[in-house]
Amino acid sequence: MNYSLFFPENVKKALQNDPPGAWMSVLPEGCIRLNSGYPAPNLVPAQQIKAAVGTLIKEEQDLPFHYIGSSHTASLPQQIQKRLESRGINVCEEELLITSGACQGIDLIARSLLDEEAVIAVEAPTYMEALEIFKNYTNHIIDIPVDEYGLNTDQLEEMLEERKQARLPMPRFLYTIPTFHNPTGTTMPLKRRKHMLKLADKYDFLIVEDDAYGELSFYESVTPCKAIDDEGRVLYVGSLSKVIAPGMRIGWIVGAQELISVFDWFKKDLGHPFSHATIAAYLEGNSLEDRLHLLREVYQARCQTMLKALKEYLPAPITWNVPEGGYFIWVKTPGIDTQQLLEQALAIGVAYVPGKYFFLHQKEGIEYLRFSFSYAEEQDMVEGIRRLGELLAPYYN
Amino acid sequence: MNYSLFFPENVKKALQNDPPGAWMSVLPEGCIRLNSGYPAPNLVPAQQIKAAVGTLIKEEQDLPFHYIGSSHTASLPQQIQKRLESRGINVCEEELLITSGACQGIDLIARSLLDEEAVIAVEAPTYMEALEIFKNYTNHIIDIPVDEYGLNTDQLEEMLEERKQARLPMPRFLYTIPTFHNPTGTTMPLKRRKHMLKLADKYDFLIVEDDAYGELSFYESVTPCKAIDDEGRVLYVGSLSKVIAPGMRIGWIVGAQELISVFDWFKKDLGHPFSHATIAAYLEGNSLEDRLHLLREVYQARCQTMLKALKEYLPAPITWNVPEGGYFIWVKTPGIDTQQLLEQALAIGVAYVPGKYFFLHQKEGIEYLRFSFSYAEEQDMVEGIRRLGELLAPYYN
Repeated sequence: MNYSLFFPENVKKALQNDPPGAWMSVLPEGCIRLNSGYPAPNLVPAQQIKAAVGTLIKEEQDLPFHYIGSSHTASLPQQIQKRLESRGINVCEEELLITSGACQGIDLIARSLLDEEAVIAVEAPTYMEALEIFKNYTNHIIDIPVDEYGLNTDQLEEMLEERKQARLPMPRFLYTIPTFHNPTGTTMPLKRRKHMLKLADKYDFLIVEDDAYGELSFYESVTPCKAIDDEGRVLYVGSLSKVIAPGMRIGWIVGAQELISVFDWFKKDLGHPFSHATIAAYLEGNSLEDRLHLLREVYQARCQTMLKALKEYLPAPITWNVPEGGYFIWVKTPGIDTQQLLEQALAIGVAYVPGKYFFLHQKEGIEYLRFSFSYAEEQDMVEGIRRLGELLAPYYN
Repeated sequence: MNYSLFFPENVKKALQNDPPGAWMSVLPEGCIRLNSGYPAPNLVPAQQIKAAVGTLIKEEQDLPFHYIGSSHTASLPQQIQKRLESRGINVCEEELLITSGACQGIDLIARSLLDEEAVIAVEAPTYMEALEIFKNYTNHIIDIPVDEYGLNTDQLEEMLEERKQARLPMPRFLYTIPTFHNPTGTTMPLKRRKHMLKLADKYDFLIVEDDAYGELSFYESVTPCKAIDDEGRVLYVGSLSKVIAPGMRIGWIVGAQELISVFDWFKKDLGHPFSHATIAAYLEGNSLEDRLHLLREVYQARCQTMLKALKEYLPAPITWNVPEGGYFIWVKTPGIDTQQLLEQALAIGVAYVPGKYFFLHQKEGIEYLRFSFSYAEEQDMVEGIRRLGELLAPYYN
C-alpha cells in the first residue's frame, strides 16, 4: 500500500527535511562523550527521586496514578512559580503551563502560532531540536547571526527594517537562547536584551526565550528577558532537564494567559501526574538552591578543565569561546570539515556534535563543533581533547 | 495586547470549538463518582510500582534519568510486543510507537493524516477526547451510528457509497472503538469487523482502532481488528491506562512502518525514559496475566452489581446495555435531559457523564448518560443508583 497518499501536503513537505535526530551519531562502546548535552551522571539525584517516590506513595497511595493525580501533582506548578520568582519572573498559575520538557513547549508554541505562511526568526547557530520542530510548520525561517555576545540585535533590526520597507510580513516570533546559549555558550548583555524587546514592540513580534541553562551561572546570575518583559512579548521556556534530570520530562512555558490557554488546548498527552507528583515530592524534600550551588561548582570546574585542555592540546588556529555558565564550549576549526572529521574522532573514541546541525544553512557550521563539559568525567574529558589534538595537529602543519 | 492576531486561521477555527475537557464537572466533596473512567483505586499497583522504582535505581542508577534512558527503558517496546502477541497482533519494533497514553497516539495520527480539507468518520457516540482532538484538525467529521452491536457497518457502507456516487472525497480514516466501546459498552461481532475492513479496502481509507478496554473481557476474549488486518489498513491504539494506571501515561500506536515513522517524526516530547523504565521494571517483576485475571473478576462483579442496582432502582422506561467487558454502562433516559439533570444529581452526591458530550451532534445524546462501574466501591455504586432512582422516579409518574 502507498500510505503517502494519506498525508496532507504540509506533512509531505515536513517529511522532506532531515529526519529528526539525524545529528545523533551511534557511539562506539567506551567513547568519550563530549557531544552529550546530558547532566553529569553522578549528579543525577536517583536515590533522592527514589525516596520521593516512597514518600509520595506512602502519603497518597493510588492518587498520583490517576488521570488527574494528587495534591503533589497539583503542587508542582507552585514549586515552579517559586523557582521562577527567584529568576525575577512573577506569574500566576494561568500564565504557566507544565510541558514534557522544553521541546514539547517549543512544539506547542509552534503548533499554535505557525502555519505554512508564517515567518519566524532564529539564531544562527541555534538549538537543533528547535530547528527541527520549526521546520515541521514553516519553511519561512530567517536566521540572525550570534556573535560573542549572543544574538546580534543590530542585524536583527536591519532585517526587520528591510522587511518593513519591502512590506514583507514580520516574523511571528523570534526564538532565542539568550543565556548560556546552545551551542555557543554566549550570553546576551542586558543592553542587547532591552534592544531586542524594543524591536519586538516596534515591529510587533513575540520572543520565545529558551532558558534551559539560565540557572547554571558560574559567576553572577543573569536576568532573563521575561523578567524585564513589560509588554508581554516574551514566551519563556524552561526545564528541569539540565538541573535535575531530563528523563523526568519536566518543562514549562510562561507567558500571557491568552497564549498559555491555547498551548494547553493543543497539549493532548493529558499531563503526567506521576512524574509531576514525584518531582514535586522531590522538590519538597530537597533544597534546589543547594543543588544549584553544587551544580554550578561542578560544571564550572569541568569547564575550567576543558578550557585548560583545549589550550594545552589543540593547535593554535583553533579557537573557542569562554562560557560563563551552561554546558557548552563552541569551537572553531578553520579549514576543517567537522562532519568529515567525526568518523576519525569516533575511531579514536571521542564524540562531539559537528557544527552544521545547529545552522539553518548547514554549510555555515562546517568549521565548528560543539563540546559539552557537563557529562564526561574530567580525566576523560582531558584525554578526549588530547586525542583530538593529536588528530587535528597534522591539519595545521 | 491582542494576541489573537498571532494565531493562524486554522488555530482560530479550532478555538471556536468547546474548550477541552468542558464535559468534566467539578465534583462536590464525597460525591459518588459514577462518571470516572478511572481504574479501581485499590487495584492500582502503587506498592509494586514503588518496588519497581527501587529495583530500577538499584540496577541502573542514573541511566533511566537521561534523555535516552536505560536498558529497562529500551525493553518496554518488547514487553508491549509480547502483550500484543497475546491479542493476536504480531509486529516488529518499527511498527510500534510508544506514546503518552492513547490520547497522544490519537493526536499524532490526526496531526499526521489530517488537514482542514480532510474528511474523517467517527462513531456516534464516541470517546469525547478523541472528538476534541479531531476537531482541532478538521470540521469535516461524519458520524455513523452505533447500535447494540457497535458501529453499524451497513450505515457506514451507505455513507461511503453515497459519497462515491457524489464524487465526494472518502474519509482519510474511520475512528472506532470496536471492543467494550466507550461510552456504550458494546462490542462489534467478527462479521461486522470483517465488513468494516472490507469497506476500508474498497473505499480506500484507514481504520483507527482504539482498543483501550480490549483486554477487560468478562467472558471470552475478543479478537481486535488489527489481528485480522491483512491489508495494513488498521492503526491500532492501545494503552496501559485501564489495566495498570493512567497516571503513568503509557500508550502506543501499532501500524505500518511507513506511518509509524511519520507519527514518530511529529512526536516532540522526546519519550519518557523514567516512566517507561519504571513500567518495564514493573512488568518484569509482576505477571500482567494474573493482574488481568484479577481485573476481569473485579470489574465483572462491579458490573453485575451495577446492573442489579439499575434494575432495582431505576424506573421502567429507562434502559441500558449489558456490557461484556470494559468500564461502562450506557443508559437511555427517555424524555429527560441528562445535562439538566446533572446539577440535581450532583446535589444528591452522584456524578455521571451526560450523553451529549459523546456526540458530534450533541443533541442526539440528550437522553443518554454514561455510568462507569470501574471506580466506585460496590456499596457506593448501589447507593448512588438508589439516589438517582429517587431523583428520576417523579419524571415517569
